[in-house]
Amino acid sequence: MSAPLPASFADAQRAIGLALEQALAAPAATDPVLAAMRYTLLAPSKRVRAVLVHLAADVCGDRSRAMPAAVSVECIHASSLILDDLPSMDNAPLRRGRPSAHIAHGEAVAILAAFGLLNLGYGHLAAAYPAPLAARVTTLYADAVGLDGLIAGQAEDVLATDAVIDFDTLERIHRRKTGVLFSAAAQAGAVSAGASDAAIASLTSYAKNLGLAFQIVDDLLDVVGTVAETGKAVRADARKTTFVSFSGVDGARELATELCATAERALEPFGRRADPLRELARYVTGRRS
Amino acid sequence: MSAPLPASFADAQRAIGLALEQALAAPAATDPVLAAMRYTLLAPSKRVRAVLVHLAADVCGDRSRAMPAAVSVECIHASSLILDDLPSMDNAPLRRGRPSAHIAHGEAVAILAAFGLLNLGYGHLAAAYPAPLAARVTTLYADAVGLDGLIAGQAEDVLATDAVIDFDTLERIHRRKTGVLFSAAAQAGAVSAGASDAAIASLTSYAKNLGLAFQIVDDLLDVVGTVAETGKAVRADARKTTFVSFSGVDGARELATELCATAERALEPFGRRADPLRELARYVTGRRS
Repeated sequence: MSAPLPASFADAQRAIGLALEQALAAPAATDPVLAAMRYTLLAPSKRVRAVLVHLAADVCGDRSRAMPAAVSVECIHASSLILDDLPSMDNAPLRRGRPSAHIAHGEAVAILAAFGLLNLGYGHLAAAYPAPLAARVTTLYADAVGLDGLIAGQAEDVLATDAVIDFDTLERIHRRKTGVLFSAAAQAGAVSAGASDAAIASLTSYAKNLGLAFQIVDDLLDVVGTVAETGKAVRADARKTTFVSFSGVDGARELATELCATAERALEPFGRRADPLRELARYVTGRRS
Repeated sequence: MSAPLPASFADAQRAIGLALEQALAAPAATDPVLAAMRYTLLAPSKRVRAVLVHLAADVCGDRSRAMPAAVSVECIHASSLILDDLPSMDNAPLRRGRPSAHIAHGEAVAILAAFGLLNLGYGHLAAAYPAPLAARVTTLYADAVGLDGLIAGQAEDVLATDAVIDFDTLERIHRRKTGVLFSAAAQAGAVSAGASDAAIASLTSYAKNLGLAFQIVDDLLDVVGTVAETGKAVRADARKTTFVSFSGVDGARELATELCATAERALEPFGRRADPLRELARYVTGRRS
């Protein structure tokens, strides 16, 4: 289903997968909400946001405290995926190549699992970090989820279905739905490494552009991808205005490439140390799932 | 609507109401999710959990740091009310005398508002408290919401509808749905006041019993109350096993009274200083809404 990230990211992905498994260790494996949380959080995934936390920490010189922020951002992201797919939202039957959480576990349990994953995201930060770092990352993530982030973007996306929206609105929706959490992930990684404000600002610019490119490629894959490649229903966005409906396939691809070039330019202060982040950007524009 | 708490709690309630209003101040009043968050969080309410935070802090000698934990617990509680009422859960049309959030704001926006309120609960702690206190209260609340708390209780409650359940199961459901967050509120208040472990333990025992009594009175009001008194549909629990269906009206009332007596006994170490908490317990057993 999910195509792997480049091999250079495999170690980080493996470590992240283990940490997520530990965060949702199952003493009471029969609990239906826990089962639905595990179903979504531990599904095959590229874990781009968690990898981004690690790479941002690394480029700032210390990845030793990256993992709790990486686990937390994946919990938050997984919870948003459950919500996105609900009947009252996108009503999507497939996610990551499998039935969506509400199909597999029932709608009530899926909603509670989404709630549980968001809750775990914050609880994990408080449990795993020294208090000052927990508070700082909590604030980054709470802002990214809140009324200028995920929640606002999702609301605008749902309410905009069937409506004609302009390019600025579309860009705002996707900045909030994807870009803001990408930025928060990069910031959290940098903060966990004790980065300077200048380094944080560079990484924020990188991640914001990367996130928007990532979303445009999502739109492209909905049009040109296959279910087998993407692991979700394609042509699901036909009712929606997307970057592809604005710019066409070639125009959207060009826009994604431009955004990734902008992202890469923001990395210049880091020199060659930022090569893994450059590799991630090139992967995002070229990805097929 | 909601009958007021005794007049002695009026000052705390007023201050809490103002703090909640500030936590959801509306720079963009047209945001549909913010409107739904405000609709639920600022609805007329006794704010028992927030008052409990304040009284617990007070009996431990310092209420000056109680407010952020009080605001946060009301955000978390409000988010759980939205979920409880959803079509896939209790499918309840009325809450606090008004249409439920999903009726008034649409299901997608209501779910996002619930998500936003939980998110705000944690974001507010990190923003308003010194980091060590934020981390400690976050852990208390995250445990109370998680897989041995609110979420688990709600899941078991939803899945138990139409099933025959025994008394122990019913008690566990309500301990998780109500008792655990009551306990966490009391603990948070105590912790904010720098209380001793012994004081925290006494207040935990008090709050746990108070919470269960509170839930039993809820069950009673569903049977003997009126819509005008309770602000929600009555006889809504007819399909469910409740404390009243186990013990009858008189038996349930007796059980609530016993639990409140147990709660009051836990206050003995505090002497007369705990009188407001005693008053709260007597109010809970006698309440009509």
